Amino acid sequence: MNSPSCATVVLSAGLGTRMRSAKPKAMHEVGGLPMVNHVLRAVAPLSPERTVVVVGPDMPDLERAVAPAQTAIQHDRQGTADAVKAARAALDGYAGHNATVFVVYGDSPFLKAETLQRMLDARDEGAAVVVLGFRAQDPTGYGRLIQDAGGDLTAIVEEREATPDEKAITFCNSGVMAIEAARLFTWIDRVGNDNAKGEYYLTDLVAICREDGGRCAAIEAPEAELQGVDSKSDLAAAEDQYQQSCRRAALDAGVTLRDPSTVWFSFDTRIAPGAEIGRNVVFAPGVTVEEGAVIKDFCHLEGAIVRQGAEVGPFARLRPGTEIGGGARIGNFVEVKNAVFGEGAKANHLSYIGDASVGAKANIGAGTITCNYDGYLKSRTEIGAGAFIGSNSSLVAPVSIGDGAIVGAGSTVTHDVDQDAIAVARGQQVAKDGAAVKFREGRAAQKAKQKAEK
Amino acid sequence: MNSPSCATVVLSAGLGTRMRSAKPKAMHEVGGLPMVNHVLRAVAPLSPERTVVVVGPDMPDLERAVAPAQTAIQHDRQGTADAVKAARAALDGYAGHNATVFVVYGDSPFLKAETLQRMLDARDEGAAVVVLGFRAQDPTGYGRLIQDAGGDLTAIVEEREATPDEKAITFCNSGVMAIEAARLFTWIDRVGNDNAKGEYYLTDLVAICREDGGRCAAIEAPEAELQGVDSKSDLAAAEDQYQQSCRRAALDAGVTLRDPSTVWFSFDTRIAPGAEIGRNVVFAPGVTVEEGAVIKDFCHLEGAIVRQGAEVGPFARLRPGTEIGGGARIGNFVEVKNAVFGEGAKANHLSYIGDASVGAKANIGAGTITCNYDGYLKSRTEIGAGAFIGSNSSLVAPVSIGDGAIVGAGSTVTHDVDQDAIAVARGQQVAKDGAAVKFREGRAAQKAKQKAEK
Amino acid sequence: MNSPSCATVVLSAGLGTRMRSAKPKAMHEVGGLPMVNHVLRAVAPLSPERTVVVVGPDMPDLERAVAPAQTAIQHDRQGTADAVKAARAALDGYAGHNATVFVVYGDSPFLKAETLQRMLDARDEGAAVVVLGFRAQDPTGYGRLIQDAGGDLTAIVEEREATPDEKAITFCNSGVMAIEAARLFTWIDRVGNDNAKGEYYLTDLVAICREDGGRCAAIEAPEAELQGVDSKSDLAAAEDQYQQSCRRAALDAGVTLRDPSTVWFSFDTRIAPGAEIGRNVVFAPGVTVEEGAVIKDFCHLEGAIVRQGAEVGPFARLRPGTEIGGGARIGNFVEVKNAVFGEGAKANHLSYIGDASVGAKANIGAGTITCNYDGYLKSRTEIGAGAFIGSNSSLVAPVSIGDGAIVGAGSTVTHDVDQDAIAVARGQQVAKDGAAVKFREGRAAQKAKQKAEK
Repeated sequence: MNSPSCATVVLSAGLGTRMRSAKPKAMHEVGGLPMVNHVLRAVAPLSPERTVVVVGPDMPDLERAVAPAQTAIQHDRQGTADAVKAARAALDGYAGHNATVFVVYGDSPFLKAETLQRMLDARDEGAAVVVLGFRAQDPTGYGRLIQDAGGDLTAIVEEREATPDEKAITFCNSGVMAIEAARLFTWIDRVGNDNAKGEYYLTDLVAICREDGGRCAAIEAPEAELQGVDSKSDLAAAEDQYQQSCRRAALDAGVTLRDPSTVWFSFDTRIAPGAEIGRNVVFAPGVTVEEGAVIKDFCHLEGAIVRQGAEVGPFARLRPGTEIGGGARIGNFVEVKNAVFGEGAKANHLSYIGDASVGAKANIGAGTITCNYDGYLKSRTEIGAGAFIGSNSSLVAPVSIGDGAIVGAGSTVTHDVDQDAIAVARGQQVAKDGAAVKFREGRAAQKAKQKAEK
Repeated sequence: MNSPSCATVVLSAGLGTRMRSAKPKAMHEVGGLPMVNHVLRAVAPLSPERTVVVVGPDMPDLERAVAPAQTAIQHDRQGTADAVKAARAALDGYAGHNATVFVVYGDSPFLKAETLQRMLDARDEGAAVVVLGFRAQDPTGYGRLIQDAGGDLTAIVEEREATPDEKAITFCNSGVMAIEAARLFTWIDRVGNDNAKGEYYLTDLVAICREDGGRCAAIEAPEAELQGVDSKSDLAAAEDQYQQSCRRAALDAGVTLRDPSTVWFSFDTRIAPGAEIGRNVVFAPGVTVEEGAVIKDFCHLEGAIVRQGAEVGPFARLRPGTEIGGGARIGNFVEVKNAVFGEGAKANHLSYIGDASVGAKANIGAGTITCNYDGYLKSRTEIGAGAFIGSNSSLVAPVSIGDGAIVGAGSTVTHDVDQDAIAVARGQQVAKDGAAVKFREGRAAQKAKQKAEK
Repeated sequence: MNSPSCATVVLSAGLGTRMRSAKPKAMHEVGGLPMVNHVLRAVAPLSPERTVVVVGPDMPDLERAVAPAQTAIQHDRQGTADAVKAARAALDGYAGHNATVFVVYGDSPFLKAETLQRMLDARDEGAAVVVLGFRAQDPTGYGRLIQDAGGDLTAIVEEREATPDEKAITFCNSGVMAIEAARLFTWIDRVGNDNAKGEYYLTDLVAICREDGGRCAAIEAPEAELQGVDSKSDLAAAEDQYQQSCRRAALDAGVTLRDPSTVWFSFDTRIAPGAEIGRNVVFAPGVTVEEGAVIKDFCHLEGAIVRQGAEVGPFARLRPGTEIGGGARIGNFVEVKNAVFGEGAKANHLSYIGDASVGAKANIGAGTITCNYDGYLKSRTEIGAGAFIGSNSSLVAPVSIGDGAIVGAGSTVTHDVDQDAIAVARGQQVAKDGAAVKFREGRAAQKAKQKAEK
């Protein structure tokens, strides 16, 4: 037997009317990734020779999201067999006795590669059609998978056509199938639409295959793995299921989560064992947290690397392009965007550091703002190692603060500051003795007058 | 039969000693609204001709909260029948064969209008007294509703007087009643206080009515609808029940909630289908979020409108009087109060914008503060369309920045800036070469000296 | 019978390999306190004459954390009896007929003093060895406690040696023991290591004691109280159990918790009845909240006192050394560290107030920063009663603002300001008419050029 080969058709043309959203259903995200991309990640380990995502008309966002996978458009939505037909051109020439076409769904984000591999194994063992089933807690409404004594799949019986005995079966059809590529479209052409909705159903392939003397098999996966998403409630439930598995995995890997139920992960979050994560931390996509780093309560991270032993938060936001060096500290009400902090650098309070580099052990005072945008262009701020930026300073980019330089508190820095220089840019302090008394009298009188006028 | 007429007596004199609070019990809030107001909202659809809230002595906050409903004071708290007596004057002259007086409770925030309507229907069908009951999971301690074969209510039996057979009944008295107005006070005057606590109980009306040959009926509602609140634990449980129903309703309406369990709604929150709500978002009262708007993680909104396609957060706070225009953006660590942002305007970082208007497409730089308060009066800041406010600026109100004007970073603006002008108000930058080295030496020496002195 | 005397041996040498952490297992925190310290707090009410914490080699942090308790090092980790041997020198001379040595575990944070007292009572009643047991939901893997008809403990049978009848017993060994001090080490010396792991087990004392004609007893505690922690998952579960009990206690005491599941307490948090706590509030160690104080949503407090009627948050952070006076207000995106706010003082928006005193009714404008650190030394800022600090000011410490003084918005204050003076320190406003048009043309051209070059 040759090494098995496969192609994948991902049905994703659904509008998701019940989602009440303009977005194609498969584009809704779980763990920060569109559901259809979860499915693509599940099929990837099988190295499919071709992957075709069947989309609806006018879904450019979905086409972009699945690239470089090919897409094919299903124009009329006349059932699952009709959807697979849309992929016919893209699969043209893909054949061979052992070649398999998977049909999977863009709204089932929990499908696992090892389940697909087990389906492939069943194909190798001679089944022309392999259907993925699950034991339903409540089978009502699902098609039942009927097996013979030898375990072969003999039929898929829809709820409304099921006998009482068949209704008692809890082994249900997930819709996911692995089909012999060589005969796929011959069989699909034989699927009729003589049913209530006038649609073409892929499940008919079981009967057609058996008519041709082919063998059908059923593989079982846990119901949770086949959870689909049809509504915003389903989506929230899927997200919860996803987050719970991420939390368990992080704990098992030795990450400290102070309250796991308040940490949210993305599909690609990487946290090293021994890192500590506080309560209410959101990991948007693209975050790496190294060993011994501490993310305190109330933090939001996206596209950021937090190096060994660095501390972030509470109430910090790291945006894409951020790298916090070893032992560096980012404190409360600080936003960092597209900026690199060297080892031991600090920005502890109420600052915005964007499009910048901050040298090792530099200290950014409270309230510092990098003025990186003038309404048209973004410019960079370079802060040298060991520099000290006084509180409430504005650094007007492009600007460079040399190593060891000091900027006085309250300065607006528009010119470069040399290494080891002290720069100050602020007004002179003037005071009028006793003036506050007079001011208060005047304002109190005006306030009284305003009240009287009301 | 005439269209049914009703009046409502809301018993709210309870101090809520077990709440361990100085606040009257009915003033404690669920979903941002005092419980008594939830009850008033439940009775409103029945258009009661009179509504009387029975309060305890010295509860001015409660009287204000229920206005314009009438209030009556129960002075001695001698039981529920005594409480209704307090409403006698307010109900004087309210009568008629079909007229009904509801007795409801200010600490039961889940009561529904349709349940009251079903009680009114039972009155219409000839019952002089209608009692609202529920099937208790654990009936211990509740009065049991005894019905005859025809379903008529024959008695309310208290736990301590119940036979074993009666104790097995799970249909329990909620206390809510609908009573023929014409005979209400005649009957109430016949209620005695010959019991352990020496109090006058409204439940006695069932026996008295039947003595007079009147018919009594019982209506059932779910136990959850009749949940009362007696302690801070009960209050927290009621809030949780309320929030869960809000979350389900939002999901069903097509709102995206990334983690429903971390979104908190108020009684009047309005979110359009297709809006996206992140994790850890609090909607205090008075918020409207339009279609396609996105509220990111960690936001707090109150009295604010977020228009179509606007984005808010993460870590943003919108306070009363805020309107965020279509496509506008409010970013992290930004507070907006009593301010209107035009379409496409932005305040993305660490700003306080209060008592202001911000024109379309204006850009408010990081760290901008509107100085709207001088200790006596609040003044307004007007920012024109397309204006650009440099970072860390202070706009000292009253002040106006013209359309298309630019304010340089770090400026304190005290005078109006004309349209298309560039205004700068900051000190000159001066620098001393190498001065930082000397400064550090001096400070390090002083630090060493301080340590030595310890 | 003399008043009972006890000593305590706390076994804490575990590395917690399964925690995947460099920290000793007993140092992991629950409710902000290392687990071993929870155990020490549980034994404290019994006033043990000696307390010995058995640690592993090279655990200086653990030794510091348990001070002033004595520590003894177990070098080879050859079982629980071996661990107790390590405490032999520290217990030298501790004896007497009634003297008891407790053996408890540094990773069981829920153990209660009253349970230990009940064990002591059993010792008083004549048992030489008292074992603490629990009814296990699932006893698999635990040693079973075998009792005779009179209730005496006759044996501890390990799972692998248990008969089917013994396996059916759910009363299991927690490992916690109270042992007659006089005979403890004689018995321990008789414990052998002829078992699969070649270790010395303390459980053997039951058989040895009975060989000597001693009586053994078993005391029962709830399984939850004996929850140990072996992994990061266990730690998270223990934290959750701890938080739930804190939340229940706060509600029962009359504290309002808007959503109890989002409030996190520390072991020493003190909140008065009638205080109101919002959603998503973290109480790190050392916080006291007085009556009528309100902590709004999204706050983080540590080492802070919030006096009567003060309001904090939302989005506020109070750090150690903070005292917020009666009726004072700390608003959003404000950080306070080592600072005292007088009665009615306010810092409502985007400020950092560190190493400072703020007089009664002083008003700190939005964006104010106390510049308390120059890279070497921390200095103080004193703000007088009734002072008004304009927005976006920088107060360069050491500096003093007199009572009733006013600082103009945007000022950088480097010199003291006298009482009732008005101080301003900022640049002059200059404006160029129409200059923004030219600026925009220039920038737009440059942006276009940059795009073209890409």
